[in-house]
Amino acid sequence: MEIEQLMEGISLKRSVESGTEEQRAAVKEILLKVRNEGDAALYELTKRFDGVDLHSLRITEKEINEALQGLSDEHLAIIREAAKNIKSFHEKQLRNSWISTDESGTMLGQKITPLDSVGVYVPGGTAAYPSSVLMNVLPAKAAGVKRIVMVTPPAKEGGISPAVLAAANIAGVTEIYSVGGAQAVAALAYGTETIERVDKIVGPGNIYVALAKREVFGDVDIDMIAGPSEIAVLADDTAIPEEVAADLLSQAEHDTRACSVLVTTSRELAEGVAAEVEKQLGELPREEIARAAIEKFGRIFVADSLEGAISAINELAPEHLEIITRDPMNVMAKIRHAGAIFLGRYSSEPVGDYFAGPNHVLPTNGTARFSSPLNVDDFQKKSSIIMYSEEAFKANSEKIAAFARLEGLEAHARAIEVRRK
Amino acid sequence: MEIEQLMEGISLKRSVESGTEEQRAAVKEILLKVRNEGDAALYELTKRFDGVDLHSLRITEKEINEALQGLSDEHLAIIREAAKNIKSFHEKQLRNSWISTDESGTMLGQKITPLDSVGVYVPGGTAAYPSSVLMNVLPAKAAGVKRIVMVTPPAKEGGISPAVLAAANIAGVTEIYSVGGAQAVAALAYGTETIERVDKIVGPGNIYVALAKREVFGDVDIDMIAGPSEIAVLADDTAIPEEVAADLLSQAEHDTRACSVLVTTSRELAEGVAAEVEKQLGELPREEIARAAIEKFGRIFVADSLEGAISAINELAPEHLEIITRDPMNVMAKIRHAGAIFLGRYSSEPVGDYFAGPNHVLPTNGTARFSSPLNVDDFQKKSSIIMYSEEAFKANSEKIAAFARLEGLEAHARAIEVRRK
Repeated sequence: MEIEQLMEGISLKRSVESGTEEQRAAVKEILLKVRNEGDAALYELTKRFDGVDLHSLRITEKEINEALQGLSDEHLAIIREAAKNIKSFHEKQLRNSWISTDESGTMLGQKITPLDSVGVYVPGGTAAYPSSVLMNVLPAKAAGVKRIVMVTPPAKEGGISPAVLAAANIAGVTEIYSVGGAQAVAALAYGTETIERVDKIVGPGNIYVALAKREVFGDVDIDMIAGPSEIAVLADDTAIPEEVAADLLSQAEHDTRACSVLVTTSRELAEGVAAEVEKQLGELPREEIARAAIEKFGRIFVADSLEGAISAINELAPEHLEIITRDPMNVMAKIRHAGAIFLGRYSSEPVGDYFAGPNHVLPTNGTARFSSPLNVDDFQKKSSIIMYSEEAFKANSEKIAAFARLEGLEAHARAIEVRRK
Repeated sequence: MEIEQLMEGISLKRSVESGTEEQRAAVKEILLKVRNEGDAALYELTKRFDGVDLHSLRITEKEINEALQGLSDEHLAIIREAAKNIKSFHEKQLRNSWISTDESGTMLGQKITPLDSVGVYVPGGTAAYPSSVLMNVLPAKAAGVKRIVMVTPPAKEGGISPAVLAAANIAGVTEIYSVGGAQAVAALAYGTETIERVDKIVGPGNIYVALAKREVFGDVDIDMIAGPSEIAVLADDTAIPEEVAADLLSQAEHDTRACSVLVTTSRELAEGVAAEVEKQLGELPREEIARAAIEKFGRIFVADSLEGAISAINELAPEHLEIITRDPMNVMAKIRHAGAIFLGRYSSEPVGDYFAGPNHVLPTNGTARFSSPLNVDDFQKKSSIIMYSEEAFKANSEKIAAFARLEGLEAHARAIEVRRK
């Protein structure tokens, strides 16, 4: 990695994959087919795209129990402990409905209600991550969502990753279907004979899944469309090059388009990290992916001051930010834009990916300027409550009618005045 | 209005306008032009679409002061009082950042930060509503957003509605530009020489504005795309036909596609309301619009029981719901899906449109199943905070590394293990 002097206005935005015209047309056709033909379309498309001849869509209790038995006790215990931590962090986000009253007897407030049902998409193949199941399901569970449906494509030989099934069972998924791709999104959005529609679809997927989610948005809610992963490390001379390098590589191994950035006030650290990255890269099983990512999207910046480094980070709005400095809490207070902030030497990013409790579904590509990690609010909605008292009504009705007339809406004014008779 | 017996599974969803291919292409071209040519494109497009030769984009202090002087003291006082109520309701929604600690010294939490900047689109012409300015700006203000930019197309003779300018000034808008349409959305999303880009764009607009917002989504955040207005009234025999009819018509006058529904347990009320709607319709200045809406999207249902009526309302998930029954609070407790809930005789919907405090930007077309009224959370975002202690790290590092290896992510495991040396 080359070392650059930090200048104002750095940006590491990558273009977002928005699909070709052909892909969009294919997705629209799949959505229409599932809407028209229901289950029959799901069987046919699963045969066509996954090469699997399903005899049923729903995964049975028996299959789930077999998955649990197929995992080691050690792994099951780790998944359970991670689930406990994630559940506990998300339950702390719960809010109550509230009402405020005034002397006239008027009551105003917000009623907070969980969504009725949520669908979680889980990719198949090598990207079948049990941690992703926990992170997408448990916030919905904490929010009070009663029906949580998981869909995931079957492997070539049929069946679903045991670790994914186990995680779904531990997280409290209520239904699991062996179907993937745009057809699974269509089933969740519109419903079929077997799969009842849901109110929101979350979870990562390939370009077809992303396009399908965009297309059904409005009929159902969706989460954000995630881009490739990013890590920024903000460090001073107290950081240890070997550790910083390992953290940068932990993101780089995800994807050739992953982005790893170090911003530091110490040239010595910058040089140490550059050397360590090169050394550790050679020892990684996923070296090819990580090397491509580091070469294209890896950057090391040396900043003149901590203030300058902080303002560069705010400009980046990174998905993951590690702060490894003398006083990380004080630095954190000045960070305005970041998905998740990891403080100090022992908060290596994988601590948050798997175990600590906060969500690993995070805003990428600079969207931390306006988006949040997946959280309980994403699975609840609010209704306003307005109970105007007779006293308040009489005191304010003329003003309300006058405001309506200022906007030329006479029927609004009359709805008020008819009550004054 | 005809009276129907309530059956299961009523739905009043209307198709959402998604634009023609031509409109989409025109919008893409406008976005590109503004991106490439900046201010020059804004001047040119304003001349082409609004027929106005602007000499500057920004509205001056002087123009704002003239607007304030152009409004009556009475109207100014009403707008100020409404703004005070809206501000107060939205400030009650504010949340603090929080951190939880455990015995090992680990700290986890959420840092809550307002967006840096927000753009508010305000339509021109007859749809220039000062109440809409208050409702879109004040939640951002309450959230702590520092920079709030308003854009609105100039009228044919140049200039902007004085009531809109006054509302913007009272609500605390920091910059106002005389530009509308897709070109205004482009300026807000990408920036020009004069207009700096924002992080989120909110506010209603015509189909070009809606398409442009959809297109820039991802580069900036947007609010929901609102459909035509809806009201549902849930009433028993205590309701007064004249009042219910007036409320149904207050929505119908908005738009020929507006939807007004009464669900009642009383056939007598149903008949009274049907007669009153006909009578009042004939006296309305916007009769033509209201009549078209009532004929196409007005429905009266008689339900066998209050329970049946409640479950029909939950199926509808209406934008506005009035509950006019003996014990509206108890009914409200069973409502799961509605944008805003108005309780009792004196909570006529226009009370909430203008004055009470809760927002009038609400989820339409059944999206109250998963969406909320515009609120303070829409203008803030969260960052996760993770400060793992040395003790917690040592106790859990083996489990975290094992979880990473279960997912085949070796570099993740090594980022943990390098810290155990």
